[in-house]
Amino acid sequence: MSVADSSKGVILAACPLQKGVAAAITQAFYRRGWDICGYDQYVDHEKRHFFARVEWEPDRVPMNADDLQAAFRKEVADVFGMQWSFWPGGRRVRLAIFVTTEMAHLYDLLMRSIAGLWNAEVVLIVSNKEDLGAEAQRFGVAFRHMPIDSSNKAAQEERELELLGEHRVDLVVLARYMQIVTTRLIEPYRYRLINIHHSMLPAFPGARPYQQAHDRGVKLIGATSHYVTEDLDAGPIIWQDVAHVDHRKTVPQLVERGRDLETQVLARAVGLHVARRVWVHEGRTIIFD
Amino acid sequence: MSVADSSKGVILAACPLQKGVAAAITQAFYRRGWDICGYDQYVDHEKRHFFARVEWEPDRVPMNADDLQAAFRKEVADVFGMQWSFWPGGRRVRLAIFVTTEMAHLYDLLMRSIAGLWNAEVVLIVSNKEDLGAEAQRFGVAFRHMPIDSSNKAAQEERELELLGEHRVDLVVLARYMQIVTTRLIEPYRYRLINIHHSMLPAFPGARPYQQAHDRGVKLIGATSHYVTEDLDAGPIIWQDVAHVDHRKTVPQLVERGRDLETQVLARAVGLHVARRVWVHEGRTIIFD
Amino acid sequence: MSVADSSKGVILAACPLQKGVAAAITQAFYRRGWDICGYDQYVDHEKRHFFARVEWEPDRVPMNADDLQAAFRKEVADVFGMQWSFWPGGRRVRLAIFVTTEMAHLYDLLMRSIAGLWNAEVVLIVSNKEDLGAEAQRFGVAFRHMPIDSSNKAAQEERELELLGEHRVDLVVLARYMQIVTTRLIEPYRYRLINIHHSMLPAFPGARPYQQAHDRGVKLIGATSHYVTEDLDAGPIIWQDVAHVDHRKTVPQLVERGRDLETQVLARAVGLHVARRVWVHEGRTIIFD
Amino acid sequence: MSVADSSKGVILAACPLQKGVAAAITQAFYRRGWDICGYDQYVDHEKRHFFARVEWEPDRVPMNADDLQAAFRKEVADVFGMQWSFWPGGRRVRLAIFVTTEMAHLYDLLMRSIAGLWNAEVVLIVSNKEDLGAEAQRFGVAFRHMPIDSSNKAAQEERELELLGEHRVDLVVLARYMQIVTTRLIEPYRYRLINIHHSMLPAFPGARPYQQAHDRGVKLIGATSHYVTEDLDAGPIIWQDVAHVDHRKTVPQLVERGRDLETQVLARAVGLHVARRVWVHEGRTIIFD
Repeated sequence: MSVADSSKGVILAACPLQKGVAAAITQAFYRRGWDICGYDQYVDHEKRHFFARVEWEPDRVPMNADDLQAAFRKEVADVFGMQWSFWPGGRRVRLAIFVTTEMAHLYDLLMRSIAGLWNAEVVLIVSNKEDLGAEAQRFGVAFRHMPIDSSNKAAQEERELELLGEHRVDLVVLARYMQIVTTRLIEPYRYRLINIHHSMLPAFPGARPYQQAHDRGVKLIGATSHYVTEDLDAGPIIWQDVAHVDHRKTVPQLVERGRDLETQVLARAVGLHVARRVWVHEGRTIIFD
Repeated sequence: MSVADSSKGVILAACPLQKGVAAAITQAFYRRGWDICGYDQYVDHEKRHFFARVEWEPDRVPMNADDLQAAFRKEVADVFGMQWSFWPGGRRVRLAIFVTTEMAHLYDLLMRSIAGLWNAEVVLIVSNKEDLGAEAQRFGVAFRHMPIDSSNKAAQEERELELLGEHRVDLVVLARYMQIVTTRLIEPYRYRLINIHHSMLPAFPGARPYQQAHDRGVKLIGATSHYVTEDLDAGPIIWQDVAHVDHRKTVPQLVERGRDLETQVLARAVGLHVARRVWVHEGRTIIFD
Repeated sequence: MSVADSSKGVILAACPLQKGVAAAITQAFYRRGWDICGYDQYVDHEKRHFFARVEWEPDRVPMNADDLQAAFRKEVADVFGMQWSFWPGGRRVRLAIFVTTEMAHLYDLLMRSIAGLWNAEVVLIVSNKEDLGAEAQRFGVAFRHMPIDSSNKAAQEERELELLGEHRVDLVVLARYMQIVTTRLIEPYRYRLINIHHSMLPAFPGARPYQQAHDRGVKLIGATSHYVTEDLDAGPIIWQDVAHVDHRKTVPQLVERGRDLETQVLARAVGLHVARRVWVHEGRTIIFD
Repeated sequence: MSVADSSKGVILAACPLQKGVAAAITQAFYRRGWDICGYDQYVDHEKRHFFARVEWEPDRVPMNADDLQAAFRKEVADVFGMQWSFWPGGRRVRLAIFVTTEMAHLYDLLMRSIAGLWNAEVVLIVSNKEDLGAEAQRFGVAFRHMPIDSSNKAAQEERELELLGEHRVDLVVLARYMQIVTTRLIEPYRYRLINIHHSMLPAFPGARPYQQAHDRGVKLIGATSHYVTEDLDAGPIIWQDVAHVDHRKTVPQLVERGRDLETQVLARAVGLHVARRVWVHEGRTIIFD
């Protein structure tokens, strides 16, 4: 999540708990005399499942990425029947941001890219409205206006998929994008598609959630960021946070507070993903942080 | 909420916003040369409603409580059409705790009474199980075992109401009391009956909420304390809080963390009520804290 | 703090507690048939001091700002011996941001201006380094490179003071500005000059605070925003917050987390000031929020 | 930290990072066909140091504790040059609480023992004042009044040491014990002696910290729990937390809030120690939670 992560390679791996699996992972590096700069694991003893994250600096692992991936597959992943993910390092994660009119979340993500605060760059902004085109231009980022209505949704999503491919996008972030995305986009970007939404205690479904929260006199407002799945707003949770509020706060103040909270929670979730610290297993996330 | 509150008198008052109301409240004291030690107000400009809390030390207000209440009614409350509540000070709030088997919440409330940390004493413990009778005995507090099933619920609630009257109870606290109380108890103890329950983001209704929260991989668990109304767990919220958790926490660890959080949130809510800092208006609380 | 605040006029006032003061403030509006949209007060009964904040929409107060200010002075402020501050509303607060090389805080403040999230605009960026000039240009904001060393500090501060005057700056924000400002700037911008810094438990003075915090194994890192006074980092605190961390966090991760926290805390402090919600009395802030 | 921990055995181990260490630890169990119910590790790659925690249910490890310890020493600990700690499980941790007059912390610890919320029991209460003797009696816990002044401190600490031995105390908790303990007690209870104290941002050394915090207008108050070392209040930190406060809080309200926070932070720290989740390395704690 820090600049220091920029050039790191990462393997995330999971498999049923079995003898020797942790040793096998680290030995794939050590037996060749290569150093790793991070190793973290989690064992779910109840479900008897094993999860690990290895991090290395490509400069200190003198094998090209394809060969390294092949070696790991043969020597470790295939042997233990792993599900795994490989990130060679050495390049920045390519982000597409989907927006409607809300500027705060977009700016925060752009700032982190431009300032080099994380190992990612925003390469594409897609919006169903034209409003934020000028901001995209200010930052020199490609902007596509993709208006969507019931008659053209399928065609537009197909076009969006093509755009994501053309820009070689690694991760899609829905930053207050006021459209429901369908399995057409979700499936190819499974666990690479992040959304943010408000979260209240109790939940206030329906319109004007902050007005409802105000009327009910809640003492906390919250935000949740998650991977998008076909179940609306019920995908694996990456990060959540809340802020204390009191009866003195007007609805516009709650909206303001909620926006800040959403911005922070979304940045945290995207940062964790970009640093390859998130694994999804049976609908829940394992966060190596 | 502090020992220093022990002997304070308090008026809580609310009325439609109108000219001179704040001045009238404080003048009722000042024109007689009496000092007040706290004055706090809140104006809801959207609904044009006014709320205030006055706090005084009975020693410095040389009029007996009944006369003071009558004077305030005549000079202020009736003039402005107020809803109001009067607490003469000078004595401790009398609490009844309803429990089933959970000990943590009960102990925390007993400790605060015994240590004199707030201006309240536990005068009665009611339980639908016998388990905590020995603890009641340890602290010398009256204990009544009131088993409830579908055949005797109405009769037992009537008896509980009598018990509350006999012990001159001011406030009833449901401290993990595993029974739904009906309007028979709610109505006479309207906004004097406090409950605590877990609160998750998203909400997990039904059985085993911590197991559900664990399976969903939530990053926060929470607790909410509220006044009991006829809408189950939907009464006016007094206090809420959350704790961060991660995937490493087992279900028993989540339950443990949740119990601590509930204990803290309940103590905070009861403390606010005992210090006469809570007013309910149209289903939401105004907290003068 | 919200867009809805944009056009509001605000009076902040304080004086020794005395009879009729609250009524006098609101009557100055009501007796003319003018409406106010917010009134909040705080009485420090221990020090017997009174504080209030009035908020109105200029459109609903049909007197020009100068006349209103004169009327309030004559009818209220002079009568009660108040210290007070008057904000006519109807225009945006003009901000100058002092930076060195850190981009995150600057971007967040720029975003809030551009998105219209608060009633303020960044009109000037001053830096002792050239690095952020390109960013200033991107946003079309005046940028002045003001290198400072021991030989030119006095002259440069005089020049900065002129610049602030030329740009009619209302509030100066030090956003990781790596220079100590002297009374030359502090005095004319008393309580209009905000700084942000990290805050640890325990405190780690000296260089590399995050390294020290890591070595000590702290479980929390924090940030504090305050008005700058001649006592370094000891001015009146406006806002503070902390984040939980654990032993797994590397120093770069702590730095990253600290930067986010500082950005949030600074934005909150500036937002409170811009909405005229902060009053300073005897070295501490009263926050009408 | 949960009841489920009651009977668990735990090994905490640390050594310079070296090949095969993680495998060796788990193999000591697996090669005998024994199951473990928890394995957690942390690698400090910067310092190249390895830390692990193993947890097992004694019933599922059919070797007596002494033999198991000997086997682990021979097969693992001696081989890798480990520093390590062995907890056989199957019995409750024996606590001594040192108090002066503050009741809240003591009650919370007693409640957790009595309710069986953690795997510990309070076996001894020591105080330099007589006040809490009646409470000790209420709970049937041994109480020793040990008044201390400059003339008898050495002798009294020697006697305390004997008492701790007689009661076979595993962990000493200073629960607002208003005496400085010397190396006479610290040395034999190194990292088995926990203290709690308030923690402010900035720090307010000296008397009446809450008054100082109030005068300075802090927006947060905090508490820190740590192992006692010869450096006053500078031992390895186990847990910390803060609460938001505002200018409306009086000094007694801050004291109240601080007491609650201290109670929670102390319980958390003691709970982590009791569950054998804390390791100290070079002055900082590694928390396996």
